Amino acid sequence: MTPNQITLDHGAGGQASHELVHDLFLKRLNNKFLRQMDDSAVVDLTGGRFAVTTDSYVVDPIFFPGGNIGSLAVHGTINDLCMQGAVPLYLTLGLILEEGLPMEDLIRIMDSVSEAAQEAGVKVVAGDTKVVPKGKMDKVFINTAGIGSIPEGVEVGSHNGRPGDLVLINGDIGDHGIAVLSSREGLDFQTGLKSDSAPLNGLVSAVLAAGSRVHVLRDPTRGGVATALNEIAGQSKVGIHLFEEALPISKPVMAASELLGLDPLYLANEGKCLIAVDPKAADAVLKVMRRHRYGRKAEIIGQVTEQNPGRVLLKTRVGGTRILSMLTGDQLPRIC
Amino acid sequence: MTPNQITLDHGAGGQASHELVHDLFLKRLNNKFLRQMDDSAVVDLTGGRFAVTTDSYVVDPIFFPGGNIGSLAVHGTINDLCMQGAVPLYLTLGLILEEGLPMEDLIRIMDSVSEAAQEAGVKVVAGDTKVVPKGKMDKVFINTAGIGSIPEGVEVGSHNGRPGDLVLINGDIGDHGIAVLSSREGLDFQTGLKSDSAPLNGLVSAVLAAGSRVHVLRDPTRGGVATALNEIAGQSKVGIHLFEEALPISKPVMAASELLGLDPLYLANEGKCLIAVDPKAADAVLKVMRRHRYGRKAEIIGQVTEQNPGRVLLKTRVGGTRILSMLTGDQLPRIC
Repeated sequence: MTPNQITLDHGAGGQASHELVHDLFLKRLNNKFLRQMDDSAVVDLTGGRFAVTTDSYVVDPIFFPGGNIGSLAVHGTINDLCMQGAVPLYLTLGLILEEGLPMEDLIRIMDSVSEAAQEAGVKVVAGDTKVVPKGKMDKVFINTAGIGSIPEGVEVGSHNGRPGDLVLINGDIGDHGIAVLSSREGLDFQTGLKSDSAPLNGLVSAVLAAGSRVHVLRDPTRGGVATALNEIAGQSKVGIHLFEEALPISKPVMAASELLGLDPLYLANEGKCLIAVDPKAADAVLKVMRRHRYGRKAEIIGQVTEQNPGRVLLKTRVGGTRILSMLTGDQLPRIC
Repeated sequence: MTPNQITLDHGAGGQASHELVHDLFLKRLNNKFLRQMDDSAVVDLTGGRFAVTTDSYVVDPIFFPGGNIGSLAVHGTINDLCMQGAVPLYLTLGLILEEGLPMEDLIRIMDSVSEAAQEAGVKVVAGDTKVVPKGKMDKVFINTAGIGSIPEGVEVGSHNGRPGDLVLINGDIGDHGIAVLSSREGLDFQTGLKSDSAPLNGLVSAVLAAGSRVHVLRDPTRGGVATALNEIAGQSKVGIHLFEEALPISKPVMAASELLGLDPLYLANEGKCLIAVDPKAADAVLKVMRRHRYGRKAEIIGQVTEQNPGRVLLKTRVGGTRILSMLTGDQLPRIC
C-alpha cells in the first residue's frame, strides 16, 4: 500500500525506501540496469569519446504549462549532451524530496521522467532518493547527470565558432521563462503559452547528418540567448552580430516581457538550440531544422564576425547597434 | 572580488555564475575536462564495462567531526563505484546552495571536494550550481554522480554471495552516524569521535588484487550494517549469520548508542565495506585489509548460509539468535 505522502522513512535506505523504488520508480523506469538494484549500474560502453554532464533542477513551481520538474530534468540533461554532438545514452536521477510531498505529485513527476526518457531513447540507469524534513527545502529538487557517445568525426563546441558562420535557432525565444514565471506568480496572460521544454537529440542528429559544417551547438537556458552567445563569442574569440528583426519571438512572450520589463534575449529556454554553421551549409541546415517537429520556426538570426572578438552586438530594427552583455544579476530565480 | 555570501546571481548562469566557477571551482578542481567550460565534459573511455552511480547529500550539519558535506559527497560516490569492483574515474558535481550561504563555507566545502578527489585519484569533470532563495532550502545540498571502469574478470555484486562465504568488515561500525548526530544536536560526548568518511578505492583494489574469490562488496551507509546485509541476503537468496561478539564497535559509539537508544547495526557508515569472500581466501583478504590505512581494524563478522534465505540472524554474545530485519522507519534523517 502506498502512503499518500512522502515521509522521512522513504529516504532512510530501509524498508520504505525499497518499496518506493520498487513500486514507483522501477515500474516506470524498468530496464535491466536499474533492475540490478546495486550501488551502481553496470553499463557496457564501446571505446571512444563520451560527453558527461550534470544539472540540478529547482524550478518553482514544480508543475508549469508545458511540463514539470521531471520532464525538465530529463530534457535539460539530454540537451546538454546533444550540444557536444553526443548521442545521449544513460541518465542518473537524484531526487531530493521534502517530507510531506503528496505522493500523487511524485507519481506525476516520475510519469513525466519516464515519458521524456522514452521519447529521447535514453535509459535512467541509477538513482538516489533523499528526504529532507518538512520546511527544510521546497518540495522537489532533481539532479540528472548524463553520458552520451560522440560519433566519430563530430567536432562541435562553443570554442569552435568561425568568422562568417551563420547563427541559427530552432524557434521562438523565451517561452520557458514566461511560462514558468506566469504560473509561479499566478499571472494569467490568457495566451495558452507553454514552456518549450523538449529533447533536442533528434533535431541535433538530423542537423549533424546534414553535413560536417556545423561548428557550434549551444542551448540558451539560464541567462538566455544573449548569455549563450556571449559564451560562444568568448570561447571562440569571435564577435557575433545578432539581427533583431530576425529573432523569432511569439506575441504572448513579447507582450508579457514588455509588461514585466523583461528582455526576451535573457529569458530561459529549454528546447532551443543555437547553431553556428558555415554559411555555405546554412540553408540546408535550416531546411532540415524546419522539417523537424522541434524546428518548425527555425530562423537565421545572426552571424559570426572577426571584429569585436568576445562581444555580441545587436543590430536593432531601426538600424542601430548595441552591445548585448552577459546576464548580470538574476532576472528570474528558480527558472530551471 | 569575491562577495562574502552566495547571492541568487551566482545561480543565474550569467556573469556572477561565471566568476564563481572560474575563481572558486576551477582553481580547486583544475583539469582539462572542466577547463573546456562547455555544457558537458568530453572524456575518452576505452571500451568495456563501467559502473555508473548517483547520490545526493543533504547531511545536517554541513560540517561535522571528520569531514563535511563536500568530502562526504566525493567519498560516498567513489565508494558506490568501488562496490562494483570499479576503478572510479570521473565525478560530476551538482551544487544547490541557499542564498546567503557564507562564501567561506563554500570555500571550505570546495577545498574538501578537491582534497578528497585528489586522494582518490578521480577527476570532477562537470558541474552545475543552482541558488535557491533564502529559506527555501537548508544551506547546501550536493549531488555527485560517478563513472568507474570495471577491470576484466571482476564480478562482484550484492547478488553474488554464496553459502560458506565469510563476511568481513574493514573496521568500527557506526562512527559516522554518531559523529553527525552528536554534532547536530550539540551533544558533546568528549570522546573525539569522528566520522569514518573515507574513499575506499585503494582498499578495494588491494582486496581484489589479493584473489578472485571476493564475491560481494557493499558499503553499509544509510540503514547501516543490518540493512546492507539484508540486501545481500535478499539479492543473493542466502542467509547470513552475524557474530555479535566479533563486531568492531568503538567504546564511544557503544556508549552513545546506549544513551540515545540507537542500535549501532543500523547506524550509517561512510568509510566501511562489507565483503563476502570464499572461506579459503578469507584470511588472506583479512591480512590485506589490516595492512591498509582504512582497514586496520578489519574483522570477520559473519558467514553466508544456505539456510534462512533472505534473512540475517544475529548470534548474540549469550548464545541466542535473533532476526535482524531491514531498517524500518528512519533513525536519523539527514545523516548523509
